[in-house]
Amino acid sequence: MKLSIQKNALVTAINQVSKAVASNSSIPVLNGIRLVATEKGIELTGSDTNTSIISFIPVEFNGDTLAEIEKDGSIVLQAKYLSDIVKKLPKDDVQIEVEGYVANIKSGKSTFKLNGLDSEEYPRLPVIDDKNVITLSSSELKALITQTVYAVSTSETRPVLTGVQWQVKQSVLICTATDSHRLSRREKAIKGLDTDITVVIPGSSLQELNKVLDDSDEEVDVILTETQVIFCCGHLTFYSRLLEGNYPDTSRLIPAEVKTKLAMNVKELSDSLGRVSLLGSSQNKIARMDIQKESMFIELSAKEQEIGKVNEELLSEALEGDDLTISFNAKYMQDALKTMKGTVELQFNGAMRPFVLREKGNNELLQLLLPVRTY
Amino acid sequence: MKLSIQKNALVTAINQVSKAVASNSSIPVLNGIRLVATEKGIELTGSDTNTSIISFIPVEFNGDTLAEIEKDGSIVLQAKYLSDIVKKLPKDDVQIEVEGYVANIKSGKSTFKLNGLDSEEYPRLPVIDDKNVITLSSSELKALITQTVYAVSTSETRPVLTGVQWQVKQSVLICTATDSHRLSRREKAIKGLDTDITVVIPGSSLQELNKVLDDSDEEVDVILTETQVIFCCGHLTFYSRLLEGNYPDTSRLIPAEVKTKLAMNVKELSDSLGRVSLLGSSQNKIARMDIQKESMFIELSAKEQEIGKVNEELLSEALEGDDLTISFNAKYMQDALKTMKGTVELQFNGAMRPFVLREKGNNELLQLLLPVRTY
Repeated sequence: MKLSIQKNALVTAINQVSKAVASNSSIPVLNGIRLVATEKGIELTGSDTNTSIISFIPVEFNGDTLAEIEKDGSIVLQAKYLSDIVKKLPKDDVQIEVEGYVANIKSGKSTFKLNGLDSEEYPRLPVIDDKNVITLSSSELKALITQTVYAVSTSETRPVLTGVQWQVKQSVLICTATDSHRLSRREKAIKGLDTDITVVIPGSSLQELNKVLDDSDEEVDVILTETQVIFCCGHLTFYSRLLEGNYPDTSRLIPAEVKTKLAMNVKELSDSLGRVSLLGSSQNKIARMDIQKESMFIELSAKEQEIGKVNEELLSEALEGDDLTISFNAKYMQDALKTMKGTVELQFNGAMRPFVLREKGNNELLQLLLPVRTY
Repeated sequence: MKLSIQKNALVTAINQVSKAVASNSSIPVLNGIRLVATEKGIELTGSDTNTSIISFIPVEFNGDTLAEIEKDGSIVLQAKYLSDIVKKLPKDDVQIEVEGYVANIKSGKSTFKLNGLDSEEYPRLPVIDDKNVITLSSSELKALITQTVYAVSTSETRPVLTGVQWQVKQSVLICTATDSHRLSRREKAIKGLDTDITVVIPGSSLQELNKVLDDSDEEVDVILTETQVIFCCGHLTFYSRLLEGNYPDTSRLIPAEVKTKLAMNVKELSDSLGRVSLLGSSQNKIARMDIQKESMFIELSAKEQEIGKVNEELLSEALEGDDLTISFNAKYMQDALKTMKGTVELQFNGAMRPFVLREKGNNELLQLLLPVRTY
């Protein structure tokens, strides 16, 4: 392997694939990045076997020469050192030459000899079977992820809840996440895929994917297989294993009835919750909401014996139905509000029942919270 | 105590004094900020007894009304909560009213009742005896601190080395820090103080002071007493206890002889050291420098058995004297170079002797490094 490559292109690709590299695996090759040079360009791969990311640097892109390949070949180099070294190289172009299992990395008057590993030891990625493909824009996909993934469970007691359920049903994609204290659901009409299919994608994979995707119009092909989901976007390919196990039926959680209905400004409510949650501990940010028909002001309050009390008054934009006093986790409501803009509609069904938050004028998104029973 | 105050002025003062507040003291008042309101304004104090910071908010400043005092009084409020609360208040003005030991903090439709403590329990600060005063501009003082404090020892085995020695000798202030592997010394001619005096100021205090001072022309009065140093700058007063014990005589460390002399670009050398130190562990970033008279290129190199090797060539701007191969801690040299601009002059006296770094054309600043014996 012998090549020269634009430093910026290499830094970008290393940053992308590094997100999938194991941080301290007992299998040495998994702590590395695989580089494969062919006449078409250089392929970089990072993997912890659960998620894998491939970034391809073509010899030429949009008329710019990104790399020149003098000799094919492959090697695995330790991700941490490769990343630090390439970022700090003095010149815009980098020469890499592999002799045995040592890579000579040169730029200007700077020369590194970095010990590597045999790329034959690197795990093989599944061959893509592109039967079930959904196509979304990168920015749509990022929105889908952001609006749901925050609600996954962080506890391993029910592993399937650490993932987001993606369900395709009559050409509608429904993404659902719940940690059993709250639930987020986002729907989106899709084209191209007629078959109904359900998978559960690890939340951590979706969070990593979100970091490597740009907020652009570029198309992303989402390929659903039995055991893997693969996201293909330009020169980037992102693999994630799927979670096994039965995802609970969440549809019956969503209340059919509404006893109290409220509309409020998202930012004002969120800022107010930010203040109300200042007194509580990080685990215990319980806020109380008092809704009285006779006043258009909603009261939010919290107290912590040792520290003090806080009280906020908030103007509601619309208010219908029964008076209500309800307690909930202020942090969870703030998380739900982060997925919305403008006006939020809150639909309650009594102090002890789950309640729903919806962005006004948006039927695709639903956030659900369970009240906290003690206050 | 009853007053109204501009939120921004209060946030600034809280941020300043918070730097001195104990983070988790068993003495409850030390986790708090003392507020004292008089007809002149509001005084905030934070202290961990080693360092104390007072920030005064006058009723009026530069023609702007910052506060209105309706009733004098004082209270101690928990720093963490006070800081978080005031920052997030919804409006630009804040009303504070103290009833017993509870502070009512109001802004817009937001009301906090924060439990406080009796300000009588708060430690008293020493009365300032302004006999020995040095006056410096804020930016000069910041430079003095930055150029020396990085070299203090972080080990408590010789507590006096965790401080910076400030020595006034014939109207010259000499600041010296050393951790016994390196030494930094900065001199500055001063006016006003005729008596010779030597104190040792804790490095941690100077670092905190550096954070609260602006990089401005504003004058700072430095008052040296037997046990304390006090920095007065506008509405800010910063107290630090002094370190006890005899600071070692460092003058004999500085070599009189020069066998090899080198001039190099500060940024190029620093960037090169950054790369050379990539392979070493955080404790062990040993670089080797090869100086050969016959070439104007200096060679910098490092190796780590497991990882690889690095080699850099650097153009010297001037080179005199003997050939030399010397090893040193690359991180320490980078730290020393951060205090300089333009060209650095390196003066060596053999591979086993301390060597000196000076900024070209600047006689006030000296950085000294000990070589590392093994490579």
